[in-house]
Order: sequence, then structure tokens, then C-alpha cells
Amino acid sequence: MQIALLGGTGDIGEGIALRVARDTDHAVVVGSRDPEKAADAASSYAATLADHGVDTDVDGAANPEAAAGADVVVLAVPAYHLTDTIDAVADDIRDAVLVSPAVGMKRDEDGMHYNPPGVGSVTQLAAANAPEDIPVVGAFHNLAAGRLAALDADLDWDVPVVADDDAAKGTVTDLVADLDGLRPLDAGGLENAAEVESLTPLLINVAANNDGLHDLGVKFW
Amino acid sequence: MQIALLGGTGDIGEGIALRVARDTDHAVVVGSRDPEKAADAASSYAATLADHGVDTDVDGAANPEAAAGADVVVLAVPAYHLTDTIDAVADDIRDAVLVSPAVGMKRDEDGMHYNPPGVGSVTQLAAANAPEDIPVVGAFHNLAAGRLAALDADLDWDVPVVADDDAAKGTVTDLVADLDGLRPLDAGGLENAAEVESLTPLLINVAANNDGLHDLGVKFW
Repeated sequence: MQIALLGGTGDIGEGIALRVARDTDHAVVVGSRDPEKAADAASSYAATLADHGVDTDVDGAANPEAAAGADVVVLAVPAYHLTDTIDAVADDIRDAVLVSPAVGMKRDEDGMHYNPPGVGSVTQLAAANAPEDIPVVGAFHNLAAGRLAALDADLDWDVPVVADDDAAKGTVTDLVADLDGLRPLDAGGLENAAEVESLTPLLINVAANNDGLHDLGVKFW
Repeated sequence: MQIALLGGTGDIGEGIALRVARDTDHAVVVGSRDPEKAADAASSYAATLADHGVDTDVDGAANPEAAAGADVVVLAVPAYHLTDTIDAVADDIRDAVLVSPAVGMKRDEDGMHYNPPGVGSVTQLAAANAPEDIPVVGAFHNLAAGRLAALDADLDWDVPVVADDDAAKGTVTDLVADLDGLRPLDAGGLENAAEVESLTPLLINVAANNDGLHDLGVKFW
């Protein structure tokens, strides 16, 4: 498959790009609003992979071009850029699965709080704005970007996956399962996305408040 | 200390009662609206503990009597009984820490959803209804009751703890740390309780949707 990381120059996009490129045979395309920035990030990721003994191409392109040829399009952008990013690629996306890892949060003096949009979750916001017949899958919400992008880091983390479209959910579940140290878990349909997303501010609060814990993910058992 | 489990005849109360009695020197009192039910549960727990080689008394009493002598009062009741239970013991509770493990949830055809009260979380609802000068600590929200009550079960679970009162938070943190296989984690103040509570419906959904996973807790790392 071809995997496009829109906003793939950001931290969560970097980690997914590097690990997909290292752990699978899928082609990776880094997307950005700025094609030059995308190309620079792609070169940098390829160099990082080469440092880890992985000889593979990573392409960079403007978001619409990255989305055009992709089988899986990951919306690796902050929640407040989500709908703009979907709008920018809506005419180019073809027969792909859209993946939403973003979480709406707000910080105040008490720490980080879950701050979902009116439709209930960012994943559902992606679904509400997706082009017709393009299924949306929520995944990769609860991964600390820094550790994800550190290819030497041992993860052993769970990835709750939510979707209403079973085939699309299966595609993303298989993709997650191919990544070393990540276990996909079926967390239900899109209506269950809020509970997945709200785990992220909890991880951030726990990391902030407890010595020795940082860059946290989670394991269910 | 003396630890009262109000609603301690229920499943989460049973697990906490058994493990506190087994793993600490604290005295355990099982509370119930019906004192006879409390006494029966206490005898049953003492018998279970004896089966596991632990020779200790467990007392049973009506909720107000159980609360009266306690240093830590755990509101081990369903969310919809929370305020009634606090009201029933408000005049009896003395210089204690109130602990709220309850989570508001609703189930529909999509699975389990977090369903907090208007104040933001059940833990904050407990704080809003607690007697003056009685601090409230949120803890024990994310523990599968069945596994908690099975004394042979190996847990290795994390327990996020939220409170605004540092001394009360310290008391509950120490109590959790004394229980085998449970690690207390500081998850912030009462304003951060919703993110802790909403993990529970996620655990239930993951257990429902994935073969081989049941009675789940969580480990942050």
C-alpha cells in the first residue's frame, strides 16, 4: 500500500512515517502544505532510516498530491487544522482510508483537559467532514510522539482503533499490527472515539506529575 | 488506620476490602445500607481471607456506623447512589478522607460511553456534596472488579489518583502503594478526574471487542 502522512513533518507524523518505513513494505509519502518542507522532511527521515540500516525511499509532496495516490491517508495534523486539511485534499483522495490520530485538548493551571468538538470527538469531526464514501478510522491517538519517533525506543504500547467501516478498520488494524511494539485493539465504533481520545490528556497529566515517567503510552491487560 | 467501604458488599468494595485486609495492617469495615448484609459480607470476606492464609477480622456495619470511626471512607457505590450515600453518613463522618471510585457510564448499541454529571465527573460530584472540611480523593476508578476480588490474580495495574488536598492525596497514595500489584500515579487535581473516569468505559469496550481480553486494567509506561 501507499501511506500518506498529511502534516507528516510534525512530530506524530514523523514517528508513524519512520516506523511504517522501517517495519513494513508500504511506500511512505510525507505531505505538507509546503511541498518543499515535505521534501526536506522526507530526506531527513530517509537519512534517519539509513542510520538505522534501513535503505528505503521516503517521498515528500504537497498534501493533495500525497493524498492522491494513497491507500491510507493519515491526518497527522493538530485538531484545529483537521477540517482545513481534509478540505484541501477532498478532491484528490481516491478510494482510500482516512486515519485520524488527533485529539482536542486544552491546558490550564490544573493540567491538560480533554476538549472535544461538538460532534463528540475529533475522530467523528473527521468523519463528518470526510468526502462521501471515504471511511474514517481513529487510531494512533495515545502515542507519545517523541518515543514513537525514536527508532531505538522499545514501545510495547496498545493502539485502540475505532471505526464504523469494518474493512477500513481491518486495514488500519493490520497496519498497526505490522509496527514493532504496537498492538491494535478494537475499541468499537466512531461513537466510542471520545473515550480513546480522552486517554491522551490523562497520559500527559500522569507524565507531568510523576517523577521518572515521560513520553507515556498505555498497555491494557 | 480504619478503612470503611461504604457499599462494600458490591463488587468493587469486595476487592478493595479483601486486598486492604490482606496486604496492610489497616482495619477494614464493610458498610451497607442494610447492617445484616454488611455483617454477612464481612464474614464471607473473612472466610475468603482465611482460605488464603490471612487470619484477620473484617467488621460489618450500617454505612453511618462504618463511616463514624473511619480514617478513610471509600464510596464503593454506583454513581447514581453517590450523593444519597454521602448524605446518609454526613453527620457521622469525622476527620476522614473520602475516596470516590465511581464512574458514570451509559451503555447503548455502540458499547459503553462516559456519562459524567454536570459538574464534570463523579469525583467532583462527591467533592461538591462532601461535608465541609472533608477532602475528597478520586482513586480506584479503572480496576476490573472481578480480578481485583480474586486474591490469586496478579494485578500489576496503575491507579491514577486525583485530589486537591495534598495530605489526603498522600494518604490514599500510600494506601494504594501498600496493595500488591497496584501502583498509585498522581493524575492531578479534581479538575482532572474526568480523564481518569473516562478510561473505564474504554477498558470495558476493549474487553468486549477483543478476544482473550477481559477484566482489564491499565499500565502507563
